[in-house]
Amino acid sequence: MAPPPAAQVKVLAFDVFGTVVDWHGSIAREVNALGLGVDGERFASAWRAGYVPAMDRVRRGDLGWTKIDDLHRIILDSILPDFGLQAMDESRRRELNKVWHRLDPWPDAVAGLARLKSKFTICTMSNGNLGLLANMAKRGGLPWDLILSAEVFRHYKPDPETYLGVCGVFDVTPAETMMVAAHKDDLRAARRCGLRTAFVERPLEYGAGVARDLSRDAALDFHATDFLDLAAQLGC
Amino acid sequence: MAPPPAAQVKVLAFDVFGTVVDWHGSIAREVNALGLGVDGERFASAWRAGYVPAMDRVRRGDLGWTKIDDLHRIILDSILPDFGLQAMDESRRRELNKVWHRLDPWPDAVAGLARLKSKFTICTMSNGNLGLLANMAKRGGLPWDLILSAEVFRHYKPDPETYLGVCGVFDVTPAETMMVAAHKDDLRAARRCGLRTAFVERPLEYGAGVARDLSRDAALDFHATDFLDLAAQLGC
Repeated sequence: MAPPPAAQVKVLAFDVFGTVVDWHGSIAREVNALGLGVDGERFASAWRAGYVPAMDRVRRGDLGWTKIDDLHRIILDSILPDFGLQAMDESRRRELNKVWHRLDPWPDAVAGLARLKSKFTICTMSNGNLGLLANMAKRGGLPWDLILSAEVFRHYKPDPETYLGVCGVFDVTPAETMMVAAHKDDLRAARRCGLRTAFVERPLEYGAGVARDLSRDAALDFHATDFLDLAAQLGC
Repeated sequence: MAPPPAAQVKVLAFDVFGTVVDWHGSIAREVNALGLGVDGERFASAWRAGYVPAMDRVRRGDLGWTKIDDLHRIILDSILPDFGLQAMDESRRRELNKVWHRLDPWPDAVAGLARLKSKFTICTMSNGNLGLLANMAKRGGLPWDLILSAEVFRHYKPDPETYLGVCGVFDVTPAETMMVAAHKDDLRAARRCGLRTAFVERPLEYGAGVARDLSRDAALDFHATDFLDLAAQLGC
């Protein structure tokens, strides 16, 4: 009989945006609080919609290495006119762009990570840049053992250099490493590199009105409703 | 009148080996406990003596990018015969090499960092590799906001890319960043890049029998007897 999928795992690598923190709700709340007369939820969705295409420009080489803070700013500048906000000045744009450093953890995230940290090394493997992830962790109390980012490997997920980069940093094998994410495409890419995988349901990632694929996928090793459930399944 | 030197500082970047952790005492204790019949203090000093020359080979380009774990292993292999330990097998060499992941913090380090963290963002800027620094922090309870390493910038200190790299990661100016170290050469290199500097006395870094230069240097911004003293001077 094959060993249980978590028997060898030493390192848990977490996707962050959507998996650990609620980007949609956090941005909507902050934008609504600014009183700009725009719909914060629509604004959050429009901003995020530019994210994958912007990273793909870097992944294809159309754009040199550019960190997420700068990609977020390019996208922000491009959507402001759609919301009638083209007159926003430079200092307010800079401040608003840093909302991505101020995203709130999901309610189970801090307690769940603390439990998981008692048994595993826990790190991020996020496309967010190091400064963003550090500011977010400091503000939200996220107890990472190590913050790893696409910025370290100069590759964005789902490039294999990111998943295998985590293994290299900790001198562990892919089978000793588990990717944790609310996104199946991220997990499938990790699995193709030999990593273990844990899917976490985040039904509200895109807001209350947008259905997410929360179905079980037999090719993934774990399926959890949140980090506390994952901790229980992993014996923490 | 010029503003006080810490008025603008947002980020404290720490040297680690010798400044935060006691490499000499930790290695001597572990080597002595192995009962190999060698003098642990002499062994620790010999191992460390190969460190700067090994990094210089990388800095000069004689050796491609090589992380500290691998440089430590090259040096270990070279000194074992000097101690009559040339017969040590591969698995014991691998285990011994990881002693650098198991260095004990100086007695004031954890409490001092916790105080400093309440007011500043605290990060490492160490030549140690990311996995080493993460394992050390997890074991010792070092509460870093972010672990930064030469491995991120592919340059070893004292190359300017390391000090300026910290500023880039946090999107702060050199004057908003302070390097904290027990080594004046490290601080002087940081100062040439425009960073603020804090010297911390670690009289026992090389063991009880080796005198260190603990004199005050007017070109450095702060001089502290330990991290608790530094916290007090910085109003934490």
